[in-house]
Amino acid sequence: MIRFENDYAEGAHPQILQKLVETNEEQSPGYGMDEHSEKARAYIKKAIAAEQADVHFLVGGTQTNTTVIASILRPHQGVIAATTGHIAVHETGAIEATGHKVLTLPSDDGKLTAAQVKACYDAHWQDSTHEHMVQPGLVYISHPTENGTTYSKAELSALSKVCRDCGLPLFLDGARLGYGLVAQDNDLSLADIAQLCDVFYIGGTKMGALFGEAVVIVNPAYQRDFRYMIKQRGGLLAKGRLLGLQFETLLENHLYLDIAQHAVEMAMLIQQAFINKGFALRYDSKTNQQFPILPNDLLKTLGEKYSFSVWETFDETHTVVRFCTSWATKKENVERLIKDIERLA
Amino acid sequence: MIRFENDYAEGAHPQILQKLVETNEEQSPGYGMDEHSEKARAYIKKAIAAEQADVHFLVGGTQTNTTVIASILRPHQGVIAATTGHIAVHETGAIEATGHKVLTLPSDDGKLTAAQVKACYDAHWQDSTHEHMVQPGLVYISHPTENGTTYSKAELSALSKVCRDCGLPLFLDGARLGYGLVAQDNDLSLADIAQLCDVFYIGGTKMGALFGEAVVIVNPAYQRDFRYMIKQRGGLLAKGRLLGLQFETLLENHLYLDIAQHAVEMAMLIQQAFINKGFALRYDSKTNQQFPILPNDLLKTLGEKYSFSVWETFDETHTVVRFCTSWATKKENVERLIKDIERLA
Amino acid sequence: MIRFENDYAEGAHPQILQKLVETNEEQSPGYGMDEHSEKARAYIKKAIAAEQADVHFLVGGTQTNTTVIASILRPHQGVIAATTGHIAVHETGAIEATGHKVLTLPSDDGKLTAAQVKACYDAHWQDSTHEHMVQPGLVYISHPTENGTTYSKAELSALSKVCRDCGLPLFLDGARLGYGLVAQDNDLSLADIAQLCDVFYIGGTKMGALFGEAVVIVNPAYQRDFRYMIKQRGGLLAKGRLLGLQFETLLENHLYLDIAQHAVEMAMLIQQAFINKGFALRYDSKTNQQFPILPNDLLKTLGEKYSFSVWETFDETHTVVRFCTSWATKKENVERLIKDIERLA
Amino acid sequence: MIRFENDYAEGAHPQILQKLVETNEEQSPGYGMDEHSEKARAYIKKAIAAEQADVHFLVGGTQTNTTVIASILRPHQGVIAATTGHIAVHETGAIEATGHKVLTLPSDDGKLTAAQVKACYDAHWQDSTHEHMVQPGLVYISHPTENGTTYSKAELSALSKVCRDCGLPLFLDGARLGYGLVAQDNDLSLADIAQLCDVFYIGGTKMGALFGEAVVIVNPAYQRDFRYMIKQRGGLLAKGRLLGLQFETLLENHLYLDIAQHAVEMAMLIQQAFINKGFALRYDSKTNQQFPILPNDLLKTLGEKYSFSVWETFDETHTVVRFCTSWATKKENVERLIKDIERLA
Repeated sequence: MIRFENDYAEGAHPQILQKLVETNEEQSPGYGMDEHSEKARAYIKKAIAAEQADVHFLVGGTQTNTTVIASILRPHQGVIAATTGHIAVHETGAIEATGHKVLTLPSDDGKLTAAQVKACYDAHWQDSTHEHMVQPGLVYISHPTENGTTYSKAELSALSKVCRDCGLPLFLDGARLGYGLVAQDNDLSLADIAQLCDVFYIGGTKMGALFGEAVVIVNPAYQRDFRYMIKQRGGLLAKGRLLGLQFETLLENHLYLDIAQHAVEMAMLIQQAFINKGFALRYDSKTNQQFPILPNDLLKTLGEKYSFSVWETFDETHTVVRFCTSWATKKENVERLIKDIERLA
Repeated sequence: MIRFENDYAEGAHPQILQKLVETNEEQSPGYGMDEHSEKARAYIKKAIAAEQADVHFLVGGTQTNTTVIASILRPHQGVIAATTGHIAVHETGAIEATGHKVLTLPSDDGKLTAAQVKACYDAHWQDSTHEHMVQPGLVYISHPTENGTTYSKAELSALSKVCRDCGLPLFLDGARLGYGLVAQDNDLSLADIAQLCDVFYIGGTKMGALFGEAVVIVNPAYQRDFRYMIKQRGGLLAKGRLLGLQFETLLENHLYLDIAQHAVEMAMLIQQAFINKGFALRYDSKTNQQFPILPNDLLKTLGEKYSFSVWETFDETHTVVRFCTSWATKKENVERLIKDIERLA
Repeated sequence: MIRFENDYAEGAHPQILQKLVETNEEQSPGYGMDEHSEKARAYIKKAIAAEQADVHFLVGGTQTNTTVIASILRPHQGVIAATTGHIAVHETGAIEATGHKVLTLPSDDGKLTAAQVKACYDAHWQDSTHEHMVQPGLVYISHPTENGTTYSKAELSALSKVCRDCGLPLFLDGARLGYGLVAQDNDLSLADIAQLCDVFYIGGTKMGALFGEAVVIVNPAYQRDFRYMIKQRGGLLAKGRLLGLQFETLLENHLYLDIAQHAVEMAMLIQQAFINKGFALRYDSKTNQQFPILPNDLLKTLGEKYSFSVWETFDETHTVVRFCTSWATKKENVERLIKDIERLA
Repeated sequence: MIRFENDYAEGAHPQILQKLVETNEEQSPGYGMDEHSEKARAYIKKAIAAEQADVHFLVGGTQTNTTVIASILRPHQGVIAATTGHIAVHETGAIEATGHKVLTLPSDDGKLTAAQVKACYDAHWQDSTHEHMVQPGLVYISHPTENGTTYSKAELSALSKVCRDCGLPLFLDGARLGYGLVAQDNDLSLADIAQLCDVFYIGGTKMGALFGEAVVIVNPAYQRDFRYMIKQRGGLLAKGRLLGLQFETLLENHLYLDIAQHAVEMAMLIQQAFINKGFALRYDSKTNQQFPILPNDLLKTLGEKYSFSVWETFDETHTVVRFCTSWATKKENVERLIKDIERLA
């Protein structure tokens, strides 16, 4: 069985493991105050050219989303997200467990538009009973989204402008950020993202690390006491250096982008194979997740040799599936898959 | 200005005020342990023929919904409600503030169907990643709904059956319960409701009391320690007798139903006037709230003498408005309104 | 049985009831936007000479404490209170239910000192692991305290200064505020309290109202969106005018202080009787609660004709009890009690 | 600088790293459903001879405590703990952030007694106003405690009996469990602990793992839906196998106890050196943490070559410090320390 079902099936990129082994005997202060974490922070601040930013390392995505959002909102505020947003669907109500409603806006491709956010904000404040409703207090987006789609610089700039006009901080979930940064049509740099968002994170778990997400709080208004929040939400790792040294390794020699590049190249090969065979794609993804719409009878055929995720029913005879690539995806396996796609009846 | 904008614009029904005055010098134990509360409890238990039920008196609707729901759910569970449900829209995220997601299902008339609830429940449990999603743990309905519509006995029975089959407690918000009980086509008794629901409440605030909601926990499984929950949520009134004596007054001589009867009669007169004039109604309400669809230019004309609520935009030239009646609605005012409707161009 | 067990055994002061009856047919906007609430707000602002203050009316004490505290604190912060504070002991964990720890400091008489608060604040920030601990974010005091004691102007000024130096807002629970304002040795005016605290409330429930607490947010930094908070916590009364007209009545002609004056006079007569008879007092209370230390065998004797609260065991042969007075305490009953105290063996 | 300040200064035991490297290329299902996690679960169930137990792996201690406690308690309940308990002091109010009060009982050595728990339970239920107070709903203990002390079988049995009599589940925090199991005077087996507690955990982070705690829910009453809780609290690691393979390695060949044995031997050597030199110990610890009471002037002398924690001020001239050992403590470093202790003036 060759696995394409997700981007976290293996351990870590070998360079990370090697670093782990090399540094194992070092004695460091706990809770993220070690030298590796400091170095990783420095790499990130340099990459975004924002000395004033605060960088923190957390273990996983749900933890990160919850900690950031709970840290920013006041009790009567909610977070605007796409209906498909990870926080709206796949975190077992973690945001609500901190007391906040997720205010969902419809989205087919996983993205929010500036106009949607503006309309939601206006609708709230124009309603004479607004105090009886949850106040929008933050905007959450993912880049790439759950559907593999990405924001263009123009789109993110428009969103950022609306957010600033409305006094709404903008938080970008970058669990798969690297895959977006290397996408064919990408025109957003890390520095652009830092400039347009108030908070964002650079995902590690789905980008070749054992685990870990690097939260960057660009706007000083949201930096205060964030370490208390991490500790309270159970995210302050005793051996915090484990997070630091992983990001240090990912960032010191472009490993992060190399991993992304490889995965996206593999994904685009798979995409092309499906297109060549005449299959449509559910989302226009240029990143490491591909969503072909397949006739139901082919699912079984392909499923004999390859694992992938069943995403959603498309119509009575077709299903959307997801193929994922990562640092660990072997080219020979992708080539085998492509041949098998070509052979499909 | 003659007011039809809501059912809580005045004080209380005179009999309630009189009782308040008569009993003012009595000395009673606090926090609902007084004789008036005991009497009111006895009236309710008798009316529903359920000796095992627990009856508690709370101050308002949001408080009641929050306290009941937070008392029943475990942290990872959410409450199923119509998108239009009061808890989903008009309680400033009070449910989320207790840590729970409101799982909304679409509804045009404010009601949930048994099939919808079943489908939602099945969808959750059939999803292989269900642990990453909020688990449905309770079903919340309103009767009458926010739209003035009511459940038939057949509908509520079907809903109740599905809930029991799925192990989902059923909670009925009866903020305007009386108006439903006297509606023309109603075939549900208070005893039916008690038999079909696990918890429900008999609203006072919108039914002629100064304030107050009588929560009836029919199912013993949800009775334990409810008074702690009331206290924690700030709902345990020191002078709890104020709640008791109001419900005592409402229930000892059918005052509750008399109030409802009067209000609904007035509402049906208003409804008929709009129909006669050729205006459609947005919802099929047989209760004290009426939702005619009016041409925008008539809003201003009517608005000169009468206050009513603007409910929602219907189309570019029409608006849905709400007319509300209550114990305090005077027949002469209704007649004046009817004449003015007849005269509309 | 003549009752001295608490200050909320009866209904409301007759003038309040009368106002309720007189205004019953008026039609008002809901949720505290009515004219009575506006008038009451104006009386309060005038009394404290602070036009910038925001005044809100809530139903009860636990609700008020919870709403104010949850509105001010960030998630990782806690509220400093005396171990005997109402929020620490008698609110079923309402503060914790909003996510915040109550940081208790020892107190024999129910009061906090400026030195204690300073020491607590310093201890937190001097600890190198402070991010692993709850950060002090607010100071809660009661005046009078649960023990009937009061702050002098010097004490409250010192506390206020420390709070401001440390950036800690100061919140004063005035559930029984009036009794403090008329106490023999009191040198604090309402305006002083407003100047020294960031938020405080003028209690109604225990001061002759049916229910109600008037929250005064003096510091503009804590005013924003408070109505959302009230609604979310279930405290926004639909018929909000009920709160407004009670405070209007209490404040328009000094009724509030008259009630306090009467109750405290009665309490001091009772205190004197116990002292004359040779009984010690547990707390130095000049307010409406008196805490004599009685030999256990006399409890039963007195308990035959009078109800009072058993406060705590003093030693093997003595018990602290509480006698409470209110607007409803009749002088003839106090005189009867005094005679019976004199007759005690 | 030779470090004795904590037991998490290095990476992981080499066998764990080796396992990590060996298995890196394996493809596994995420979120703890992998074979390594299954094997680790089997080892634990076998060790405690409790097939019905549920075993889950979480990342850290605060996360584990919070998830377990929030999963068991109802909203109005609190958790009983020693004043020195980790959840009471060092988790930034994580428990309160889930809505629950920590009900602290005084303890000098970090342990709770059966009598204390019984008294606390009785005091609650005997109070006539108990509904105004937080209800004890769970008992939390640590073994070893924060002070290095341990429960004897007799003590834990007594505590367990009281808990069962009172209907209070007993939860044992075993962040340093191994060190307790190998202590000189220990008479508790892992199976005893499983029999006497409802839930406990086997700590990894402080016992040689990179991170990780193995929660064992022995009592089926508390097993339901625990994975939802882990996910909601941000503890469901995507690459869950990282947790599984660490515990697999620790448990398959007694590595866990070997690590503990080594650390405790080193600690006892240090203890003896302090005793020989005439220094008293603050706590009677037979585990890997030692708390000598040192004259203040010697702190600096020792601190030149060795790092240790300053625990608390003992008196004006003495300070309690903590020396910690772990799998990584080298015998030669301990011998050097002992010599330097002997040489102290």
